[in-house]
Amino acid sequence: MKLTILGCYSATPRTLNNTTSQVLEINNHMFLIDCGEGTQVQLRKHKIKFNRIKHIFISHLHGDHFFGLVGLISTFRLLTREADLHIYGPKGIKEVVTLQMKLADSWTNYKLIFHELTSENSELIFEDDLVEVHTIPLNHRVYTNGFLFKEKEGDRKLDINAVEAANINIAYYTKLKQGFNVKNNDGVLIDNKKVTTPANKPKSYAFCSDTMYKEDIVPIIKNVDVLYHESTFLEKHAHLGPKTKHSTAKEAAKIARLANTGTLLLGHYSTRYDGLKAFKEEAQEVFNNVELSEDGKTFEFN
Amino acid sequence: MKLTILGCYSATPRTLNNTTSQVLEINNHMFLIDCGEGTQVQLRKHKIKFNRIKHIFISHLHGDHFFGLVGLISTFRLLTREADLHIYGPKGIKEVVTLQMKLADSWTNYKLIFHELTSENSELIFEDDLVEVHTIPLNHRVYTNGFLFKEKEGDRKLDINAVEAANINIAYYTKLKQGFNVKNNDGVLIDNKKVTTPANKPKSYAFCSDTMYKEDIVPIIKNVDVLYHESTFLEKHAHLGPKTKHSTAKEAAKIARLANTGTLLLGHYSTRYDGLKAFKEEAQEVFNNVELSEDGKTFEFN
Repeated sequence: MKLTILGCYSATPRTLNNTTSQVLEINNHMFLIDCGEGTQVQLRKHKIKFNRIKHIFISHLHGDHFFGLVGLISTFRLLTREADLHIYGPKGIKEVVTLQMKLADSWTNYKLIFHELTSENSELIFEDDLVEVHTIPLNHRVYTNGFLFKEKEGDRKLDINAVEAANINIAYYTKLKQGFNVKNNDGVLIDNKKVTTPANKPKSYAFCSDTMYKEDIVPIIKNVDVLYHESTFLEKHAHLGPKTKHSTAKEAAKIARLANTGTLLLGHYSTRYDGLKAFKEEAQEVFNNVELSEDGKTFEFN
Repeated sequence: MKLTILGCYSATPRTLNNTTSQVLEINNHMFLIDCGEGTQVQLRKHKIKFNRIKHIFISHLHGDHFFGLVGLISTFRLLTREADLHIYGPKGIKEVVTLQMKLADSWTNYKLIFHELTSENSELIFEDDLVEVHTIPLNHRVYTNGFLFKEKEGDRKLDINAVEAANINIAYYTKLKQGFNVKNNDGVLIDNKKVTTPANKPKSYAFCSDTMYKEDIVPIIKNVDVLYHESTFLEKHAHLGPKTKHSTAKEAAKIARLANTGTLLLGHYSTRYDGLKAFKEEAQEVFNNVELSEDGKTFEFN
């Protein structure tokens, strides 16, 4: 599981700070999460192949999370993309994108599939053999969802020496990987656990931005390996949290502790602060394993 | 008259190439012309004060000319702008901006005034004591206007030695600047031309992008000091011009020659070419005084 931060600052793009966008590589998928203005340039800069992106998840319709979307869609068109593109986001996202295509008289030559979200409860919005994606309803000034990405339990791994020693026909290997006991060439039933080892532990990633402190999300993200939780403010501006519906670094850490998260990743920093050190320090008063998002930084979680 | 090129490439923003946007300083106005994605970051980079921009002119609703507009409007809001902002552009521009403000539940605290354009003929769209702005109807795949910016004839200049020698009361200086003959302290009528010198020659700038070769614009831009004319293609791709409704460098030069332009400024280059030298060379086969737009370049025309 690999996460590339394309932008992690709040409000407005600046010369050196990009607004929210990230790429999550998980079980061969490449998911784009949020798409602030300039995301397409950040994707180029970090040499992320446009064609690998087939699913884009938009948390909410504030500009710093989606003003780059229509440009990216338009660039895909100019590059003669053919693959379908799925877009998950709040109701209204389809209207705003299609209006712009209509005004430009520039319709995509690939299929654009919108999945508009309206539920106030967590729901499964994507699933295949490898991965599930669930929404995480957040509390912000407009309708907002975080997203929970979960690998599915993979196949068990063959212990090839043990399999051969047990004299099992190659035709049964798939069954073994699926966890079944099988008979060997001598008709003896072989205990699966003696010839296979467990699958890799499925990994999970929760993206929670933008939101004020919301304990309701804890059951949804319980035991997640990595939690990205917005931390717009430091403690000295905690009073702005409820007003603007954002969180402090400490509040993000409280959620991480309650949810028994592996790693907490902070981000969506207000640009009023010089440097990010204090965000980490304040979060670590509550929760130990804290990392700082930074534009262009890549995290590998294995 | 000073022009700053924020972006001058066609189609999509790239790591080093920005899409169309320019700032024209003329007679104390600071006009923003077109606003591709990333324009707000380019404005910051070139230290252009946001508050000095009171008028934005959008040629057409293709993304590489306007996807940065809504982000800029939103950033002005976040920076608590108070001054009115006038936006001139094709019909539809108001709907697309206001839809995004509605979805974000983020209305501007300053006054946003849209001037939607629909005419197929050149029209006067802005005028004050110092400057006029006219549309230049272009021929592109969607409804498109260029813009002609014209300084008005300013005041005559006092020859202060001559004025004092002529014994003219200071109360008449404004009249003198306006070109009137006035009586001096001895009651003698003084010929204005003897105590003043002509005003600076009013300057003019025409922005023509995007368009295929269109001779109809020549009477509108006749004798303009500086003509920016798009030159998407080199001669070897001239066949793409009518199809995509763009021009070659040579066609831009033909327009400049017919219009008796002072300087021709090329831009809106396709990113398929390595370097810009050939654009200038091909244009100079037809018209001598050619300059190349480049992102970040500033031209002073005095």
